[in-house]
Amino acid sequence: MLQKPYLMVPGPTAVPERVLQAMHRPVINHRGPQYEALFRDVSDRLKTVFKTKQDVLTYPSAGTGMMEAAVVNILSPGDHVLVVSIGVFGDRFAEIAAKFGAVVEKLDFPWGEAADPQVLAERLAGDKEGRIKAVFLTHNETSTGVTNDVRALAAACKGHPALVVVDAVSSLGAVDLAMDEWGLDVVITGAQKALMLPPGLGFMALSERAWAACAQSTMPKFYWDAQAVKKALAKGQNPYTPPVSLLFGLAEALRLIEEEGLDNIFARHRLLATALRAGVRAMGLGLLADDKVASPGVTAVLPPAGIEAKKIQKTMRERFGITLAGGQKKLENQIFRIGHLGYVAETDILVTLATLEMTLTLLGHKVELGAGVRAAQIVILEG
Amino acid sequence: MLQKPYLMVPGPTAVPERVLQAMHRPVINHRGPQYEALFRDVSDRLKTVFKTKQDVLTYPSAGTGMMEAAVVNILSPGDHVLVVSIGVFGDRFAEIAAKFGAVVEKLDFPWGEAADPQVLAERLAGDKEGRIKAVFLTHNETSTGVTNDVRALAAACKGHPALVVVDAVSSLGAVDLAMDEWGLDVVITGAQKALMLPPGLGFMALSERAWAACAQSTMPKFYWDAQAVKKALAKGQNPYTPPVSLLFGLAEALRLIEEEGLDNIFARHRLLATALRAGVRAMGLGLLADDKVASPGVTAVLPPAGIEAKKIQKTMRERFGITLAGGQKKLENQIFRIGHLGYVAETDILVTLATLEMTLTLLGHKVELGAGVRAAQIVILEG
Repeated sequence: MLQKPYLMVPGPTAVPERVLQAMHRPVINHRGPQYEALFRDVSDRLKTVFKTKQDVLTYPSAGTGMMEAAVVNILSPGDHVLVVSIGVFGDRFAEIAAKFGAVVEKLDFPWGEAADPQVLAERLAGDKEGRIKAVFLTHNETSTGVTNDVRALAAACKGHPALVVVDAVSSLGAVDLAMDEWGLDVVITGAQKALMLPPGLGFMALSERAWAACAQSTMPKFYWDAQAVKKALAKGQNPYTPPVSLLFGLAEALRLIEEEGLDNIFARHRLLATALRAGVRAMGLGLLADDKVASPGVTAVLPPAGIEAKKIQKTMRERFGITLAGGQKKLENQIFRIGHLGYVAETDILVTLATLEMTLTLLGHKVELGAGVRAAQIVILEG
Repeated sequence: MLQKPYLMVPGPTAVPERVLQAMHRPVINHRGPQYEALFRDVSDRLKTVFKTKQDVLTYPSAGTGMMEAAVVNILSPGDHVLVVSIGVFGDRFAEIAAKFGAVVEKLDFPWGEAADPQVLAERLAGDKEGRIKAVFLTHNETSTGVTNDVRALAAACKGHPALVVVDAVSSLGAVDLAMDEWGLDVVITGAQKALMLPPGLGFMALSERAWAACAQSTMPKFYWDAQAVKKALAKGQNPYTPPVSLLFGLAEALRLIEEEGLDNIFARHRLLATALRAGVRAMGLGLLADDKVASPGVTAVLPPAGIEAKKIQKTMRERFGITLAGGQKKLENQIFRIGHLGYVAETDILVTLATLEMTLTLLGHKVELGAGVRAAQIVILEG
């Protein structure tokens, strides 16, 4: 049976036709005036998305590269850091920091829950000598579908000298984040999530305090050197070859974001997440995250007893052309994840629910066909 | 709210990404060897879709142009013709034939019903002198969503000298048609329906008998002159500039058709039509055509009492991004039509039903949300 692909994973996400079209242009010289104008323009417009007055640096990179960039630019070997982890990507920050010689202390919360700002505040209050140089936070934990209250977590860091580093890879552009207003020192993200681009671009912004730390940092770096990137940006350039086609795409993606408006985009993500969760519940399935901390961009679903998560993913993909994500690390095969980040419409949610109902039926699980769709329809109609 | 467009009209239909990509190539000289190879190849492969050994002629044209080409190539002014009409496109054949001086007799059937082969057989039996030169048939009447039994209608013409002309514009490639086996003399179609191309190409094939009639025909023609097109085709050429990009697309569309297989394509169209009709019925709406004659490619739906068809179309388009077609001529605003021809998957049907349920709700019509989707899901699961 002919299928149309639906890429419902939390990155890479579906790329709008307009962005694909924009990328389909002859490559230009990255040392010429045409590129310079393009790069200055997108770098400037990215500030609005980060809600910052600081430079937004662009790297040819995956999201993990930006995590490494955050670590190596502000720290020196032996520095004490506190990593607040609620899942795979929190753990990854700890791993990277340790590899480069930081002394890592973890503040772990159960997977599926959000970090408690109170606990963070208490831990920092205990650090009377101010030994902790940086606190690493995950805005949206992609592996569990939980969004941390980064504003409250950053507020819990106030009064302590530690820099606040935020992994906003799967949140920026889908969930509100106000870098300057919330006092965030390093914010990183990737292109292939809410920014609606194919993978290949990473972005990082640093506060004044973070730039000062940069000047002192002795961790080894060449590719990730933020000062080199900043210096090149001042001339509308990159220190090494940028993925020019992705920058054509970025200009168009930013145009799409500006046309829809950030607040409308955030509201859309919330509505689609609410509709999806209502639908999943109506077909009798469990959700890993509580409504209060549920991510607007990715939803982790518990499969019914006796049916492997991987089987559900396989049937969705092979029978209906809908690609979902699996669980990672200790959640492998315990959950499946539905991405609804970036270029996602109400119709995508309806299709996912209708085919999920049919998939469960095909796998022998009793489900009232149409019930999940109906629950989502009600949410959408109530808008 | 961000929308993704769904073009659910009976032509032009959605064009597969692979076809769009194939068209995105530099234009080539239509008098060179590269074009000649391409044109010979697609012309040859089109024969499989027409199920004929005859040449399939390609014109830069809309579907209506192919109707005119059929008329002017086989007839002479003053010729008597019988036009079997079950809707707008049957009537159009009569109009064209009359414009060019044919003496037109119409055999009308109520809109929403199919033509009765028995009635046709009786009329031809009454034409003892064999004055009727051609019988014009519509395979799939796009305006009413009815598919004629062309095989039976052609069989009803056996024994009478009239040529059998078939408008297969919205059927070829979606509904089985066997030109040679069924004894059809002229078959025409367009690119923008089941052939999954953007509009701009028309196709016509003629039987030996039709070619003989061509040689005698005195209706004025230059652009539509089938003999000129056939002569050029023998050299891998066209008598005048062909839409080269569409021919790139045609090569890819034929590849898609060959990969899926005609029988699978026909089965898919039947299944999707059945699922859609079950869904429409489950939400309490009426269907113009009876199941027995319902088109596998387009479905005409009766709006609920008190709600204008146009309002439904407007809400579907503006609120959800789903484009449906309206009623034509005397069916204007009496029906709306859902196209499910060509590049259409199960998910398109589910989206259309889910959004139609929500549209009716928004327009104040009581409908059990999810009920239409459920009915379609059941049909799909039973496959």
